[in-house]
Amino acid sequence: MSIPPVIEWCDGAVHILDQRRLPDVVEVLRCRDVVDVCDAIRGLAIRGAPALGVTAAYAIALGARNIEASTEEDFLQQLGLVIDVVVATRPTAVNLPWAAQRMRETALSKSGAGVDAMRHSLVESALAIAADNEQRHQALARAGVDLFRSGDRVLHHCNTGRLATAASVGTALGVIQVAHERHGIDVIVSETRPLLQGGRLTSWELAQANIPFTLITDSMSADLMRRGEITAVIVGADRIAANGDVANKIGTYAHAVAARSHGLPFYVAAPRSTIDCDVPTGAAIPIEERAPEEVRGYSDWRWAPADTPVMNPAFDVTPHDLITAIVTDCGVYRPPFAELCRVDEMSKAPTG
Amino acid sequence: MSIPPVIEWCDGAVHILDQRRLPDVVEVLRCRDVVDVCDAIRGLAIRGAPALGVTAAYAIALGARNIEASTEEDFLQQLGLVIDVVVATRPTAVNLPWAAQRMRETALSKSGAGVDAMRHSLVESALAIAADNEQRHQALARAGVDLFRSGDRVLHHCNTGRLATAASVGTALGVIQVAHERHGIDVIVSETRPLLQGGRLTSWELAQANIPFTLITDSMSADLMRRGEITAVIVGADRIAANGDVANKIGTYAHAVAARSHGLPFYVAAPRSTIDCDVPTGAAIPIEERAPEEVRGYSDWRWAPADTPVMNPAFDVTPHDLITAIVTDCGVYRPPFAELCRVDEMSKAPTG
Repeated sequence: MSIPPVIEWCDGAVHILDQRRLPDVVEVLRCRDVVDVCDAIRGLAIRGAPALGVTAAYAIALGARNIEASTEEDFLQQLGLVIDVVVATRPTAVNLPWAAQRMRETALSKSGAGVDAMRHSLVESALAIAADNEQRHQALARAGVDLFRSGDRVLHHCNTGRLATAASVGTALGVIQVAHERHGIDVIVSETRPLLQGGRLTSWELAQANIPFTLITDSMSADLMRRGEITAVIVGADRIAANGDVANKIGTYAHAVAARSHGLPFYVAAPRSTIDCDVPTGAAIPIEERAPEEVRGYSDWRWAPADTPVMNPAFDVTPHDLITAIVTDCGVYRPPFAELCRVDEMSKAPTG
Repeated sequence: MSIPPVIEWCDGAVHILDQRRLPDVVEVLRCRDVVDVCDAIRGLAIRGAPALGVTAAYAIALGARNIEASTEEDFLQQLGLVIDVVVATRPTAVNLPWAAQRMRETALSKSGAGVDAMRHSLVESALAIAADNEQRHQALARAGVDLFRSGDRVLHHCNTGRLATAASVGTALGVIQVAHERHGIDVIVSETRPLLQGGRLTSWELAQANIPFTLITDSMSADLMRRGEITAVIVGADRIAANGDVANKIGTYAHAVAARSHGLPFYVAAPRSTIDCDVPTGAAIPIEERAPEEVRGYSDWRWAPADTPVMNPAFDVTPHDLITAIVTDCGVYRPPFAELCRVDEMSKAPTG
């Protein structure tokens, strides 16, 4: 089966592979306006923190194309509204505001050149963010290769493959892929309730890549650690605070607690664009609360009584003291993670 | 909605409420032979360790009714085969072999009285086991009441209500119910993948009992503990080893590890018939591996690729050193659990 790109800029439209129906149905959404892209983000047709950065950039470029304005001032004002709408789609992944900030700076840098030049530069900038995203993830995947050894059985949570990065390799799954090629490792895939990104997407991506894996329900990981069936954990991140606290898919913290309890290493893999140096600790990261229907069942299926009260935080925060290392496109950071936001490190940040 | 009994002896047949389709469909299976009951056990139409003890007793009484034998020796030989078939349906819950052993002793105690007397005594014994089961669970529910205080938010895993005990109250849910009446407490219900006994059955039972609760996915519990949203954990048990190690639904151990990590009490509630003094530690408890389809989806729904490799242990073992107390019908046991299998305690065991 030939799989379309996760997201693509197609001359005035953004094409998004609809991940809600994968792996059974392969369907591409053709978004002609920023509103269509925002709907796709909110509805999780596209997800994963790095992919959301690229998506936000394309959404803003698309929105800018459709702005009717005769003055730069009017254009920039309407662009500000477009950016606000895009950033508000999902609160936790920092890659959305990160990309939005770069797009805002791009437009401002064209002050005096006219509205058309601004529009054009925004498309160029979005394409540059996507190209930079690709390079970053290739570097990231290589950076973590020696965290693992032959025979390792690595627990992975949620989906961090190319579906989540919109690059040709994933974050944590990118590291796993390169480590598998180099050393030969096995993967334990936790299904990741409620939206089952592990069961649906990671299983599918690993099978395509011929990497050996075994699917489990989320609550099996601690038992497998106790029985020696898991030797390490690696996950992605939606936002990393300056002190190394990591917000990631709900259930990440439970795996981290279990890993610590069994003396196993717990790794996080994310591009540097996921590090939010404006946020001192994980306590300041906003956590999205999603619809109760997601916990009462899955997709159109429901098994809990219809009015069952539910909590549904989409993410949790793993404190830095449970993290063995953070793998980025600029190398591997170790506790106490003091270098994460040092100025010389920040200079390695992308310019979009 | 009026709910039929979980299991009932109806003059030559065993009626079983089919829990696979609850809460949406209320249907009673009418089992006319031991094979029908075994199918219901294996297919999880009825489940829960204490309920399986009663079910095994009824199944054996039903099987005995249908044995054609002219001599006691022939009858006892065929009864042995019936018992073996019943005990082999599921390996982990000790209540199956526990009830089977009592039924075997009942038949032997009628040696010399004839085959009909043996058959009759087996029905009487099964009804006595069911009556004893009822009394035990009422005592158990009262025994744990002062483990909790007003305002507690208690995490509960799987289903341990009347559906799991075949009594008028549950084990852990029985303790919760009495504690709620006395002190006022809230319940956090973990959905319990893969078979969702928490989401389907516990949510339904708590709503019927007007006990306030919130449903979560299994991997949320650690995060809620970190945020102070859970103050204690209580679960049931499928088999308790002599040293206090507890086999229970997969995911129990993950909750126990998280509870220890957050300094929260972890309680187990089970009738004394769940304690297996022939098993020195949890390492000797057989763990049932169930079908991979259960992890690839739920019921007739599948979301993972069809041939996805899966691990599906139905139970895990929580070591005794993570357990704060074990609540039984004979009172509350505390570490180091040396009294669990002391002879004077054993004398409190039922005689069926």
